[in-house]
Amino acid sequence: MTFGPVSPPDAATAAAARARQDTLTKPTGALGRLEDLSVWVASCQGHCPPKQFERPRVVVFAGDHGVARTGVSAYPPEVTAQMVANIESGGAAINAMADVAGATVRVADIAVDAEPMAEHIGAHKVRRGSGNLAIEDALTDAETGAAIDAGRRIADDEVDAGADLLIAGDMGIGNTTAATVLVAALTGAEPVAAVGYGTGIDDAGWMRKTAAVRDALFRARAVKSDPIGLLRCCGGADLAAIAGFCAQAAVRRTPLLLDGLAVTAAALIAERLAPGARQWWQAAHRSPEPAHTLALVALELDPILDLRMRLGEGTGATLALPVLRAAVAALSSMSTFAAAGVSNRALS
Amino acid sequence: MTFGPVSPPDAATAAAARARQDTLTKPTGALGRLEDLSVWVASCQGHCPPKQFERPRVVVFAGDHGVARTGVSAYPPEVTAQMVANIESGGAAINAMADVAGATVRVADIAVDAEPMAEHIGAHKVRRGSGNLAIEDALTDAETGAAIDAGRRIADDEVDAGADLLIAGDMGIGNTTAATVLVAALTGAEPVAAVGYGTGIDDAGWMRKTAAVRDALFRARAVKSDPIGLLRCCGGADLAAIAGFCAQAAVRRTPLLLDGLAVTAAALIAERLAPGARQWWQAAHRSPEPAHTLALVALELDPILDLRMRLGEGTGATLALPVLRAAVAALSSMSTFAAAGVSNRALS
Repeated sequence: MTFGPVSPPDAATAAAARARQDTLTKPTGALGRLEDLSVWVASCQGHCPPKQFERPRVVVFAGDHGVARTGVSAYPPEVTAQMVANIESGGAAINAMADVAGATVRVADIAVDAEPMAEHIGAHKVRRGSGNLAIEDALTDAETGAAIDAGRRIADDEVDAGADLLIAGDMGIGNTTAATVLVAALTGAEPVAAVGYGTGIDDAGWMRKTAAVRDALFRARAVKSDPIGLLRCCGGADLAAIAGFCAQAAVRRTPLLLDGLAVTAAALIAERLAPGARQWWQAAHRSPEPAHTLALVALELDPILDLRMRLGEGTGATLALPVLRAAVAALSSMSTFAAAGVSNRALS
Repeated sequence: MTFGPVSPPDAATAAAARARQDTLTKPTGALGRLEDLSVWVASCQGHCPPKQFERPRVVVFAGDHGVARTGVSAYPPEVTAQMVANIESGGAAINAMADVAGATVRVADIAVDAEPMAEHIGAHKVRRGSGNLAIEDALTDAETGAAIDAGRRIADDEVDAGADLLIAGDMGIGNTTAATVLVAALTGAEPVAAVGYGTGIDDAGWMRKTAAVRDALFRARAVKSDPIGLLRCCGGADLAAIAGFCAQAAVRRTPLLLDGLAVTAAALIAERLAPGARQWWQAAHRSPEPAHTLALVALELDPILDLRMRLGEGTGATLALPVLRAAVAALSSMSTFAAAGVSNRALS
């Protein structure tokens, strides 16, 4: 399972965008982070001024995890399949939030522990539930490859269909346990420093979750520097697919917004699969999960928002989309000092 | 100059909104700050679920300050009038950003040091430029009252015209100097702890600005606990109008987003003029200006965003509007556990 080379966003366009920012009718640098984001979008598009996003697309990757049967989540495992149906019928948080942000939503059943609810949702399904990472491999070698490839093909499908911004989302009871194992393995963090409260477990649940992470890390010793081995040993098919999706977005030169812990853990794997891919990503927000911050630091990504959100599904990423839209709008439609007849500062 | 009593947002609606949040298909509390914001919007509207904003309105209050002639800004004073024209013709940052956020923009010349560029822009004009607060009163008593009343009448006009969310913005070379004096006077901060770099002054400019703030605070000793006296002595007509606008929004039970230092300093005055008004406001963002954080702390408001923005005009506030929209959308359109057939957590 290899990815094509990742080329960086266009440096010449970035320079042009930076220069254009300094001609606009505002104090130099006064739009702060928005100026950086506008330059990033322009460099991803290879076009200055950047074009407003017309087809942002959220893909929610759904999968179950055997470890969820051991009391590591506040919700029962059957919620994953129920939420896939809820997303498909438009009733989940991601539907409401994508709609106001001007994005559309697709849900893909990668490894839900149920029959696919519809052919288009299950088209890339790898298996019913990943194994319990505390005691067994989450996937076989073949399943790992198939799951990464599923994410890659979904990214290709969406880019070919015209998506100009991708958002990765997740849905899966137990997936923060698997994601935490991946992040701890790749950053060397101790379980107690990485495990969070997920959907809102109590202290006894946190102890069970931390024990599961510890056991999985013990099992993962032999593969801790092997991204595909990690996905097989203690990841899961949904996370593998997200990794493939994030990597392929970069191969296809398409900007992508990361969401919370599950997506960012998969992105940390994706950066190993396709070095340089992170240049095509922005971290939309910071969740309260400790492992999320560990992953963001490892990726050297600075989250745009910090609103104590811990829902997943891509919700945090949809909230950063209007910030990107504002950055694009400012760089593309503001007047210049010269055109507006506004006096610029004396250049020293 | 007195304001009608401020009644709080509706507590029963807040309770209903909080209860509704816990029935929606997501982990309890998982939308973080968005849940609080959705409850706030519902309680302001007195309606649960809340209605999506249909007519958010930005009002940019423009005014010049005599102190700007003493080298406290990186830009020359004539920029204020030029930027009023730029906003009116749609070329400023606030135009681009309000547009993508679904808000409309009005600019009001309260004290620009030029003839009004059009009758509708100058309808509430108080004078040409406020006095140099380092050496003289910024306004007369009559002008102070007229400026506060201008802001009040503008808020009334906008609410009467159907605005369901107000955003206060500012434009005025030198206005962060005046705003910093107000904040320092009301919080007891030393000038060196309050003065920032505004539009991007150099260290020599910062020293001139700090000296002006120090001189104004010396002049303001007798009125430091008198909000109207402070506006007269060392505020300015634009800031007085913003204070009247923020206070009247609360009297009219209309939610309002604060922007950066100039607006938040005026809001600190408004809370003195109309106690309780701050319950109708959210702090949209945190700017790098030290006095902005001092004012936010004094108002006990927690900013939604922190993106190093320091432009003013209401731009930071327009960036928080999509966050409010997402909060409203989630609370109003998500499915409940019961309706979607999703298993809820076991209640302990």
